This record gives sequence, structure tokens and C-alpha cells, in this order.
Amino acid sequence: MVDTVGIVGLGLIGGSLARRLTERGVRVVAWNHRPHPYAQAEADGIFCKSTLSELMDAEPDVVVLCNPLKAMPAILAALAPLMGDHPNTTLTDVGSVKGMVRDQVKAAGLGKCYVGAHPMAGNELSGWQAADPHLYDGALWAITVDESTDYRRFLDVAAMITKDVGNRVIVVDDETHDKAAAMISHMPHVVSTALINELVANPDRNIAAALAAGCWRDMTRVSLTDPDRTRAMVEEDSLNVEALLRRMAARLTDMADQLHAGAAGEQDVMGFFAEGDPFRRYKAAVTHAGITAAQDGTATAAPQAGTTAAGFPERELAVPEAGWQQTLLFSARRGEAITGFVHPRQAIIQLRPAM
Amino acid sequence: MVDTVGIVGLGLIGGSLARRLTERGVRVVAWNHRPHPYAQAEADGIFCKSTLSELMDAEPDVVVLCNPLKAMPAILAALAPLMGDHPNTTLTDVGSVKGMVRDQVKAAGLGKCYVGAHPMAGNELSGWQAADPHLYDGALWAITVDESTDYRRFLDVAAMITKDVGNRVIVVDDETHDKAAAMISHMPHVVSTALINELVANPDRNIAAALAAGCWRDMTRVSLTDPDRTRAMVEEDSLNVEALLRRMAARLTDMADQLHAGAAGEQDVMGFFAEGDPFRRYKAAVTHAGITAAQDGTATAAPQAGTTAAGFPERELAVPEAGWQQTLLFSARRGEAITGFVHPRQAIIQLRPAM
Repeated sequence: MVDTVGIVGLGLIGGSLARRLTERGVRVVAWNHRPHPYAQAEADGIFCKSTLSELMDAEPDVVVLCNPLKAMPAILAALAPLMGDHPNTTLTDVGSVKGMVRDQVKAAGLGKCYVGAHPMAGNELSGWQAADPHLYDGALWAITVDESTDYRRFLDVAAMITKDVGNRVIVVDDETHDKAAAMISHMPHVVSTALINELVANPDRNIAAALAAGCWRDMTRVSLTDPDRTRAMVEEDSLNVEALLRRMAARLTDMADQLHAGAAGEQDVMGFFAEGDPFRRYKAAVTHAGITAAQDGTATAAPQAGTTAAGFPERELAVPEAGWQQTLLFSARRGEAITGFVHPRQAIIQLRPAM
Repeated sequence: MVDTVGIVGLGLIGGSLARRLTERGVRVVAWNHRPHPYAQAEADGIFCKSTLSELMDAEPDVVVLCNPLKAMPAILAALAPLMGDHPNTTLTDVGSVKGMVRDQVKAAGLGKCYVGAHPMAGNELSGWQAADPHLYDGALWAITVDESTDYRRFLDVAAMITKDVGNRVIVVDDETHDKAAAMISHMPHVVSTALINELVANPDRNIAAALAAGCWRDMTRVSLTDPDRTRAMVEEDSLNVEALLRRMAARLTDMADQLHAGAAGEQDVMGFFAEGDPFRRYKAAVTHAGITAAQDGTATAAPQAGTTAAGFPERELAVPEAGWQQTLLFSARRGEAITGFVHPRQAIIQLRPAM
């Protein structure tokens, strides 16, 4: 059971989470590195504290680190002695890479109380002024665990997300999370930036830009965000991004070779364009399920970025004491997400189209 | 002066153009390889003909080839003997590659009466049922010329686009057009497809797809269109696409090497993310101009895909008799577009932000 949540950092993500939890009846205590958002946050019912020590004195069941990743080592160092006096408090975070954060948490001696998390929510804005409780509407969170993760602490974090925030959860290990994030976000950000770099280097860039339409607009949108923020994200997940960039380079070179071969490469060119069909069918199935749910009036969640509102079927999943991590990871690999718990060893699983 | 326009092919592009021209008072005669859209087209005021010979008997000032590129050689062969009896009729087309079409036009003996064109309009639909006169709202057309292009014929096509359709025009040579189209559309389509192929090959594809948000959705949208249509487009511009794919592969490999180098590659990583700043500034300037124009109430055109409604300043440009092609090409390279003519040797040029 989660009665009190501590939020460290009242930026876009932390502020939105604090406002969401408060709206849904959870007691939220918060600390920010500068107190400028405190007056507004207090008006919204959030209890703001001037030190991390005061935050911990409020006995939060879960502390959520919503600070920038670059501040993580300093905040963990400050928290470590305080957490020792509150052995039941669970520590989690919202960082976009998980392996690096776990290493830092362990280095600070806080590994035992830690469960990682990453909400797939956000936009191009930042800061408390942009905080919006609806930022989390329909969001999916990744919860990251390892062999030593305490199941009771996992349940606290999962209950906070499913019951108190009203979102869905998948369980993964750090490596799987960071590779997946590199696949669908970090590496594509580099590709998008490479596209605009290629245009800028083109002597006919003004003609090309004038002729550009929807394809170019969509493929370069993320390259328009603060390049320094993108750079930090890529460097924090650099091993995975590096491997994927090499694979993408090989795919593009293969295609160039096949085009060069003309008629001799025709079969390979056709194969290249057919290879992604499982993703095309997956997208069609997700869209179809969303449309059907909307027609049936069974849609339960607001549309999520990248997918549609949908009322997907649910079933129950028994979670064993031994190997619960693997059971939940395999469920995520099947495309399922946790929407809640019947009791601590019985999760409710939402079934979604899978590839 | 253009009184009558002949449209060959009543699909999405040809049907939309025929409806647009008819709405704006131009007499349109049309031929389609199957007569199924004729009843609706006639109801819209389009004069449908059962043969290309009947189409030419209507004495069109300009004939616009809107057929699929694969049908081009057969249609040109059928048109060639008919065009000989109508020496003043100008031939143009709407194909997405221009060098290949000009070669085919010349092979059919029709080079003298030809001016190439490519409207930057379209969507993921096809066929007469999707035809919409508003498809051309705010569109830019490329007109392609070579050393031998007749200026009077160029003016007929440019007048049809600026005066009768109400669009803007830039003038380029075939090579510049096909390279620019490869840069902002054909090559990015391959990159988008390579991204979904990479996801499909990923053992954790369902986890990655579940975690995907706006970045992934936008960067893979064009990969969801009919892969066979994309394949044809890429193969028709294969030399340019091949060269750009190799350059993109080199950029991605360089970035992988810099990430691999860690701290030693840090400066290069920062350089990579700064390299596209001219494009970021260009986008900001276009957006700012659009917002300013909207606030001033000076916006004249509907929003164009990839940019915003805007009332950009205009000036006049003298077009010399000798070297008019170069004068207009240099204007396009400066980011300008033609919106009309004061008289045959005096164009009106819209000034837009440039890189």
C-alpha cells in the first residue's frame, strides 16, 4: 500500500507526477533543487520540503527520483545516509536509461531498496510551468528489476503506477530496457540528425527544402529539439546506440549495393521492402483494435502517443515466488502489460497485438 | 494564355488537377485508361474523351501526363503521331522523377514540345475517388527545363500553375530536381523502412514497440505506405538514392566510432549534433514568418505540408532571353519561388527564408 510518495525534482516529469498523484488522493511530499515552484505546488496540494532530510521525515512509502540524470550521483550521495533511517522506503526513478542509474544507486549503497522505472511520457517542454497531470494519460511505464529486487518493493512501485497514477506497466531488466530505448528513440534521434546534417551539406539545400513535404517534416521533427539534450541522451546509452548505428549503416549500404546492381539486385530490393511487414501488420492490428474499441464504446484510456485509445482484452497471470522476474519479462515479450493486481501474486494482464 | 488543358490519367493527382482547373474556369478535356470515373468527372464539368486522338482534337494548349510512370512509354508512343498534328500544344507531366521521363519523351520524338513538372502535393491515397481540388492548396511545383526548352512553352506551363491552379513554381534542371527529391523523400523512405526492418529483427521487438512514442511513430510513418509503391519510386531514382544511402551510412558509422571513442570522441559528437543548426534556424525562421503573417492577417495561402501559412515579401525578377534557365535556377537556389508574371519577361518572386 502506498500512502505517501516523495518526489525529488519538480520539473516536467516530476511536477506532472506530483500533480497527478495529488489529484488521485495520494499524499505527495516534494523537494526541488530550487524552491521557485513551491508556492504553486503547495497551492496544488503538494507538501514541499526545504531539504531531503525533511522529505524523508515525512516517511514516504516510495521516493521517486525525477531529477536530471547528471544530478543523480550528488542526490544519491545526499540520500544514502537518510534512507538508512527509513528501511521500508522504496527508491525508484524516472530516468531514460536504467543500467547506468542502477550502477550509481548500487555505488551509493542503495541497491537493496531500489526498483527502476521509466514512464513513456513527455514532450518537448521542460520545467514545473509545463507540468500537467494529463501528461500521464494512457502512458506505459517500464519497471526494471534484477535478480536481487525485493518483490514487496516491486509491488509498491507497480501499485503506485497502476492504482495511484492509473497507468500500465511492463517489467524488464536494465539491459533489455536500454536496448529497446536505443531502438525506438535514441538511435532514431541520431538518424534524424544525420538527415538534417546531410541536407545542410547539400549545395542545393534550399531547393530540396522547398520541395520537402510530409515525409521530410516527420522524419526530421525530433532533430529540431535541443541538440544538447539529445546528445546527452545518446551518450548515456552509447553502447547500445553504437551497435544499432552500425547495423543501420550496414542495412543502408546493403540497399545501396542492391540498387547499384540494378536488375541483378531486384530480388533483394523487393526483399528489403517486404522485411518490415510484421511491423506493418502490428500497426494495422493496433489501429484496428483501437477503432473497434471506439465503436464498441469499450475504449478505456486516452490515446497514447504512437498508438490509439483501445479496450484490449485482459486476463490474470499468476506470479511465482521464484523466478517472478522472468515470468513478468516473458509476459512483456509477448506484448502484454500489467494493469493491476487481484492480490500480490495475481496480476491483471492486458493483451495487445504482438509481432 | 491557356484556354484548354488536356489531362491524361484521372487518378489522385490528375483527377485533383482536373477538378481544380475546372473550378477556376479552365476548359479541361481528359482521358483515362479505363472510363470508370467518366460519369462523375463529366458531372464535375470535365470533358472526357474515349481516345487520346479525341483528346488532341479538342486542341489543348497544354497536355499534362498524370499517368503512372510505368505507363509512360506506351502513352508517349500513342501520343507522338497525334502531337505532330498539333505543333502548338505543349506537353508536360507530373512524374516524381524528371530525368527518366525526359529521356522517354525524347525517345518518342517529343522533346521539342516538352516542359517537365512535379507538383509537391499528394497523400497516401490513390484513384479518382480520392481526387480533391484542395490537394493543391498552397503547393509548390518544380518545373524542369533544359538548354533546348522553348520559353513560350515554359510560360504556358508556368502560367497554368501560377494563374490557373494558383500555386508557386521553382525552375530546376532534371538532375537538380532528382537529387533534391532523393534527398528529402526517396532516400528518407529507405531509411524509414530500414528502421522498421531493424525493429522486426530485434528479439525484444514487442517490448521496444510497446515503449515507442512520438519519435518512433513519426520516423516510421512513411514506411507504412504500400512498400511496392515506395520500391518503384526508389528504383526510378536509384543512382541518387544509392549515393545518399552511402553518405548516410558513413555519417552513422562516424557517429558510432565517436561514441566508441568515449571521452576522446566527445568533441566530434558535439560537432555532429551542432552540424544541422542551419536547418534548425531555417525552420524557426519559416515558422516565425508564418506566425507573423497570421498575426498580421497577411497570410495568403493555406498551410503547405511541411511549412506554415505565410505572406512572404515579393519582388520582381527580370528574365533574360539568353540564359533564362540559369537566372531562374539561381533564384530557386536562393530559396525564392515564382508566384506569377507581370509580363512574359518579368516574373514575380516570393522571398522565403533560406539556408
